[in-house]
Amino acid sequence: MAEVKFRVSANLIGKFTVEGKIRKHTLTLDEPADLGGDDKGPNPVELILLAQAGCILMVGRVVAMEMGITINSFKVDVVGVLNPEKFMGKPTEDRAGFKEITLKVYIDADADRDTLKKWLEIVEERCPVKDNLVNHTPVKVELA
Amino acid sequence: MAEVKFRVSANLIGKFTVEGKIRKHTLTLDEPADLGGDDKGPNPVELILLAQAGCILMVGRVVAMEMGITINSFKVDVVGVLNPEKFMGKPTEDRAGFKEITLKVYIDADADRDTLKKWLEIVEERCPVKDNLVNHTPVKVELA
Repeated sequence: MAEVKFRVSANLIGKFTVEGKIRKHTLTLDEPADLGGDDKGPNPVELILLAQAGCILMVGRVVAMEMGITINSFKVDVVGVLNPEKFMGKPTEDRAGFKEITLKVYIDADADRDTLKKWLEIVEERCPVKDNLVNHTPVKVELA
Repeated sequence: MAEVKFRVSANLIGKFTVEGKIRKHTLTLDEPADLGGDDKGPNPVELILLAQAGCILMVGRVVAMEMGITINSFKVDVVGVLNPEKFMGKPTEDRAGFKEITLKVYIDADADRDTLKKWLEIVEERCPVKDNLVNHTPVKVELA
C-alpha cells in the first residue's frame, strides 16, 4: 500500500494576506475588500471550490484516457453557499463552512451522453477532493 | 440569515494543467512530473492543504483581534497522507482522499500558552474549511 505525504507551509504576511509554499510554487491568499482584506488573492473557501473543480478536471482527464475518450474542451463552474456568521463569531445555528457545493461540468468530447454519464460517475468516485469533502476527514491542529 | 455565494470557474488547458478564475484572480494548477503533469502549479489535494492552513491563519487573525492578542509571527505547516491507488484506478480498500491532515501552528504573540490554547480552540471551531473537511459537505456534480 503506497502512501504519499503532501506538504504545504503558509505564513501570515499581512492583515489577512497569506503566502503559501507548495514545493516550488508560491501562492498568495487574501480576503476580498468587503471581508476586510487587501484582495491579493483568493480566500481559503474559494480555494476549496477551485480544488474541487481542479480535481474533477484532472481525474476526468485520467478516466477519459482510460476509456479512450478524446476531450476537445472541458470546463467546470462551481458555486458554494456559505453563511459567514459563525466565522465572524456571531450567534448562529448554521455551520461554519459551505452548506452545499454545486459543480456544473461542460465537456465537449467524442463520446455520447450515456458514456459521459458513466465517465462522470467513475470520476466522482475516484476524486480525492470530493472524498475529503463528502466524508469525514480527520484534521488535527496542534500548537508547536 | 446572511448567505454568501462564492463562485469559481476552471478550465483544462493542458494534459493536467488547469486555469482557475476566482474573481479577478487567475491560478494555475497542475500535477507534478512524477504524477505525469507539467508541474505548472500545485495540484488539487495540495490546494486543500493550503486552504486549511490559510483558514487557520485568517480565522486566527480575526479571533486574535477580538481577544486583544498582538501577533508577531504566525505560520502553519501542514502534512496530508494519501494513497493515490483509488485515484489511479487500482484495486484498493483505501479511500480516495487524505486519510489524515495534520497542522502544526507556530505563533509568536503577546499571550501565554493557556490563552493561545483557548484561542486555537475558538479558531478551529469557527474555521469554515475545517468544518467542510471534518463534517459531511454535500457536493453535487452535474453534466451541463
